[in-house]
Amino acid sequence: MASTFHPPQRTLMGPGPSDVSPQVLEALGRPTIGHLDPQFVKLMDEIKELLQYAFQTNNELTIPVSAPGSAGMEACFVNLLAPGDKAIVCQNGVFGGRMKENVERCGATAVMVQDDWGKPVSIDKVRAVFAEHPDAKVLAFVHAETSTGVESDAKALCQLAHDNNALSIVDTVTSVAGIEVNVDAWGADAVYSGTQKCLSCVPGISPVTFSPRAVEAINARTHKVQSWFLDMQLIMGYWGANTKRAYHHTAPVNAMYALHESLLILQNEGLENAWGRHQKNHQALVAGIEAMGLTMVVDADDRLPQLNLIAIPEGIDDAAVRNTLLSHYDLEIGAGLGDFAGKAWRIGLMGHASNKKNVLLCLNALENTLGEMGAPINKGRAVKAANAVYA
Amino acid sequence: MASTFHPPQRTLMGPGPSDVSPQVLEALGRPTIGHLDPQFVKLMDEIKELLQYAFQTNNELTIPVSAPGSAGMEACFVNLLAPGDKAIVCQNGVFGGRMKENVERCGATAVMVQDDWGKPVSIDKVRAVFAEHPDAKVLAFVHAETSTGVESDAKALCQLAHDNNALSIVDTVTSVAGIEVNVDAWGADAVYSGTQKCLSCVPGISPVTFSPRAVEAINARTHKVQSWFLDMQLIMGYWGANTKRAYHHTAPVNAMYALHESLLILQNEGLENAWGRHQKNHQALVAGIEAMGLTMVVDADDRLPQLNLIAIPEGIDDAAVRNTLLSHYDLEIGAGLGDFAGKAWRIGLMGHASNKKNVLLCLNALENTLGEMGAPINKGRAVKAANAVYA
Repeated sequence: MASTFHPPQRTLMGPGPSDVSPQVLEALGRPTIGHLDPQFVKLMDEIKELLQYAFQTNNELTIPVSAPGSAGMEACFVNLLAPGDKAIVCQNGVFGGRMKENVERCGATAVMVQDDWGKPVSIDKVRAVFAEHPDAKVLAFVHAETSTGVESDAKALCQLAHDNNALSIVDTVTSVAGIEVNVDAWGADAVYSGTQKCLSCVPGISPVTFSPRAVEAINARTHKVQSWFLDMQLIMGYWGANTKRAYHHTAPVNAMYALHESLLILQNEGLENAWGRHQKNHQALVAGIEAMGLTMVVDADDRLPQLNLIAIPEGIDDAAVRNTLLSHYDLEIGAGLGDFAGKAWRIGLMGHASNKKNVLLCLNALENTLGEMGAPINKGRAVKAANAVYA
Repeated sequence: MASTFHPPQRTLMGPGPSDVSPQVLEALGRPTIGHLDPQFVKLMDEIKELLQYAFQTNNELTIPVSAPGSAGMEACFVNLLAPGDKAIVCQNGVFGGRMKENVERCGATAVMVQDDWGKPVSIDKVRAVFAEHPDAKVLAFVHAETSTGVESDAKALCQLAHDNNALSIVDTVTSVAGIEVNVDAWGADAVYSGTQKCLSCVPGISPVTFSPRAVEAINARTHKVQSWFLDMQLIMGYWGANTKRAYHHTAPVNAMYALHESLLILQNEGLENAWGRHQKNHQALVAGIEAMGLTMVVDADDRLPQLNLIAIPEGIDDAAVRNTLLSHYDLEIGAGLGDFAGKAWRIGLMGHASNKKNVLLCLNALENTLGEMGAPINKGRAVKAANAVYA
């Protein structure tokens, strides 16, 4: 018979969820109040403002979707596309493929721009595709590919969309709070993120923001949004300013406490400081990984500091290493996805989990585990190299 | 500048969320682990079994959708309907209207069966509509209408669907754990619920269950489900038995801890005991309400014990009363919706909130508040009448 569940205390250095701070967990467990309670409405207003800071935007329609990042993605596509529309979709990892699925399920056509997994989206290719498809209504791309640890040039891509009278849809699930995301400076139109990456909040919520241009497009729709749950015109009635808060769905009240708390932590640290911290810990990890004799998969210029792809040494069993890390060190790192399945590990240094203690734990654990498995690594150098970065 | 949010300690006697027990809140705040962690996979298996108990079903596809009840509703419609299909939708309150929206957004046609708000769905009307529309693929109805506090005859309606070779979609958001829900005995095909009503878990998750017949229909689809996030064929890859747990989306890990705990509480109490408790507290509330001289809106035979519609006395300001209850007693009751806006209150006695203390608190608070506002009520009788039920 089932009994109460006591999770182990893991260190979460995979692709997300990342370690959630005790402060956020404590907020999460506070007493539930009604989703139309005046105190909750006040909390919603604060969350909107704090999300505007995290996204660096003045967009009024900046809210948390009451579901995971995949639903945030879907919210962007179903609100901006209608049957018969055309969207240019950049794919350089798993999530571009999911975008294609979203486009097609809207009855729209996806024109794909393919780049190698592990490389950023090619601006030149996108420019060429726009020349062939000037009628594209949307350009969609992933800023920080969680499957490959690669950053693409969001500013340049949004500019291309703008130059071609298209709306941009940008996946910032893994980037917000880890590297610079500047929605207004980019001129991005529909942007979604997740709570469980560099915000270090519990998984299950997807912050989104829509530019005035995107809101105009939504308001001009003649074809109803195919999802009732994700219809932004309806959601605006609940989350919007200057409206009587109309019931749409029951907000995940406690998850909002946690999101609010994690956004306060971000605000208190300051975005620039958070980016700097992610960068520093990344450098230390890379120094240790390379000192050990392991190889980073992604070119230095394209790397995400919050998600590091490490090539699995020849002859080493991917799953055996990850299982050992989990069972001996309570340490979770991520498996490779798609092209990188079995070939690379994904080591996250996201949000609350991006700290020196985790970097050193991970290097030690990897060194011991690989050593025991007979991998040809340099011993005794990794921690020293990492510490030199912090010195 | 925003600071950490400390919610007031409310008593939640509206239409949901209901009071969440400290035990569930404590589980919610436990350390986050990965959504593919072997320990989490084990938890998922237990949740599936516990949900089968709550729904009274052996359906293998019995899982929590990672989003609120509205998304659970949408999951049922988008997986069973395709463009060109026809669905018979029963409406006797708000949620039948939402079902119609879902049908139409699937590109299907909704044939509406209208009943008065506050009355159950008429079996005779549905039978007549089936005679006119023998090609209907789906019959959709609400078992327990949260907007009116009315129960409809789910068994008879599912039987009608079966007799007409249609699949039944049943809304049990407010019924599960409050009154009998017996998915297998009904022969229901797609059933969704919510966590924030009689399960007394935090809001944000929607348990669903699909019969083998429904799964067969999903597997036979030639038109892709329009929602990627809610596509059951994909979700089965993550939640299904006998599969490698394939990544679909990041599960709301902590919400699953809470759901698991609330389902354990239900299992420990036993379904029959939970139904009996809801019935007893309902009777006590009604005795007090009527002793006060107030009127129940719904006929005794059709009432939901967990959601009570009370007619607002002539000349009494709906919002003023609710605001006083909230500010003086930290007590939340619900406003009327649709036809009942301004005309009735909705008093919930759901899950953990269905207890004697809450019944007496509510009767006292209502008596004092209405008395001060000069409503023509009998004073000093309500609590006595309620206590007589408990004696």
